[in-house]
Amino acid sequence: MSKIYVVGIGPGAYDQMTGRAIRALEESDAIIGYTVYVDLVKDHFADKEFMTTPMKKEVDRCVLAFEEAKKGKTVSMICSGDAGVYGMAGLMYEVGTDYPEVELEIIPGVTAATGGAAVLGAPLIHDFCLISLSDLLTPWEKIEARLLGASQADFVICLYNPSSRKRHDYLQKACDLMMQYKSPETVCGIVANIAREGEISKVMTLKELRDTQVDMFTTVFVGNSQTQEIGGKMVTPRGYRR
Amino acid sequence: MSKIYVVGIGPGAYDQMTGRAIRALEESDAIIGYTVYVDLVKDHFADKEFMTTPMKKEVDRCVLAFEEAKKGKTVSMICSGDAGVYGMAGLMYEVGTDYPEVELEIIPGVTAATGGAAVLGAPLIHDFCLISLSDLLTPWEKIEARLLGASQADFVICLYNPSSRKRHDYLQKACDLMMQYKSPETVCGIVANIAREGEISKVMTLKELRDTQVDMFTTVFVGNSQTQEIGGKMVTPRGYRR
Repeated sequence: MSKIYVVGIGPGAYDQMTGRAIRALEESDAIIGYTVYVDLVKDHFADKEFMTTPMKKEVDRCVLAFEEAKKGKTVSMICSGDAGVYGMAGLMYEVGTDYPEVELEIIPGVTAATGGAAVLGAPLIHDFCLISLSDLLTPWEKIEARLLGASQADFVICLYNPSSRKRHDYLQKACDLMMQYKSPETVCGIVANIAREGEISKVMTLKELRDTQVDMFTTVFVGNSQTQEIGGKMVTPRGYRR
Repeated sequence: MSKIYVVGIGPGAYDQMTGRAIRALEESDAIIGYTVYVDLVKDHFADKEFMTTPMKKEVDRCVLAFEEAKKGKTVSMICSGDAGVYGMAGLMYEVGTDYPEVELEIIPGVTAATGGAAVLGAPLIHDFCLISLSDLLTPWEKIEARLLGASQADFVICLYNPSSRKRHDYLQKACDLMMQYKSPETVCGIVANIAREGEISKVMTLKELRDTQVDMFTTVFVGNSQTQEIGGKMVTPRGYRR
């Protein structure tokens, strides 16, 4: 039976990959992914065949992987972070219904939420939500309802895709919504280029976050009512009882 | 300056650790953790000094780590999964205010949510929440508000600590709350002993989950309105537009 590994390579590539992920890539004949991620691992697996497809061509990328596997190759489909968090794992199962002869194995990795959290300190110690601000496949009303619901229930909130050229004011809109329930003094943090060259992070209040410009390589963290700044780090306690 | 690494070893220990986590343990003189986690890595780092403290002695464990570091040792404090998700990273910063001469570095790992998701298929592809059902440090009313808010906003929900001897009916209570907004036919999944001996997983409906007994080593996944079962796997699509 042909096999495809769907592999999360972690936020910063080689050093953040798990042993199991490295082993899967070593076992593979072909490694497929979005150009940027393939470049992150290429040097470490020099004898492999590499194939890339551009952004927004995710279905094509899945079909390519299954077609290569059908030829008898062992294939790794790589994703940054974890393949199961806003990644390719779901689409691979959906496309895979046309390829019942190919087996899928998902190999987890460190996602931007926990990779970024480690840079900021410990913002995600207690209950948290991940919300993507991209409205490409999700109606904005749904995103809005989630921001409000999560804020009202005092979750720590981690925002993926906080901005893009077309959505430059989405983070501001999101902050205004969250401030309906969260204090403007809520401790927040941003991390860009997690575990890569140019990594930067900053701890600030929700009010300050509202007026901060971030790019699409930034992950945003909004604390709960208990989150504190301790020595420049963003730290959420384990609970509400001390 | 003395240094402590706070290291997430991933769900199943050695093969699920990142390169960076392995390097931190190799650089350390002493490795400290809850007995069960220390046993998971011990054989791979045979020349290290190991120290353990039992469950519920988390503050003592942190103090032990700082006291050892004060002696000039490089110390790794290990946690299963990710140290920043219901882990020791937060408490280390809190206790660390008494030890300004010790530097902390958090090393992320694969948490049970993404490790378990990979076993079940791709349940966490879209916005999701992590909620712990343990009311040891969090009032139950807060947990209840989160279950309701997250269900109403159609999040995928991942439950940590779904059960214990004292809380044997908490998962049932949580399912009843979620069914106020989620269909009883919502696709759900459970995974026990992720990436360890005895790993088991099962996909079922929310109605079936309600009447399922799980133990404290189980992670529970409750889908959103779009989550499907595909070939025995639990798969959430990337959005709401097809």
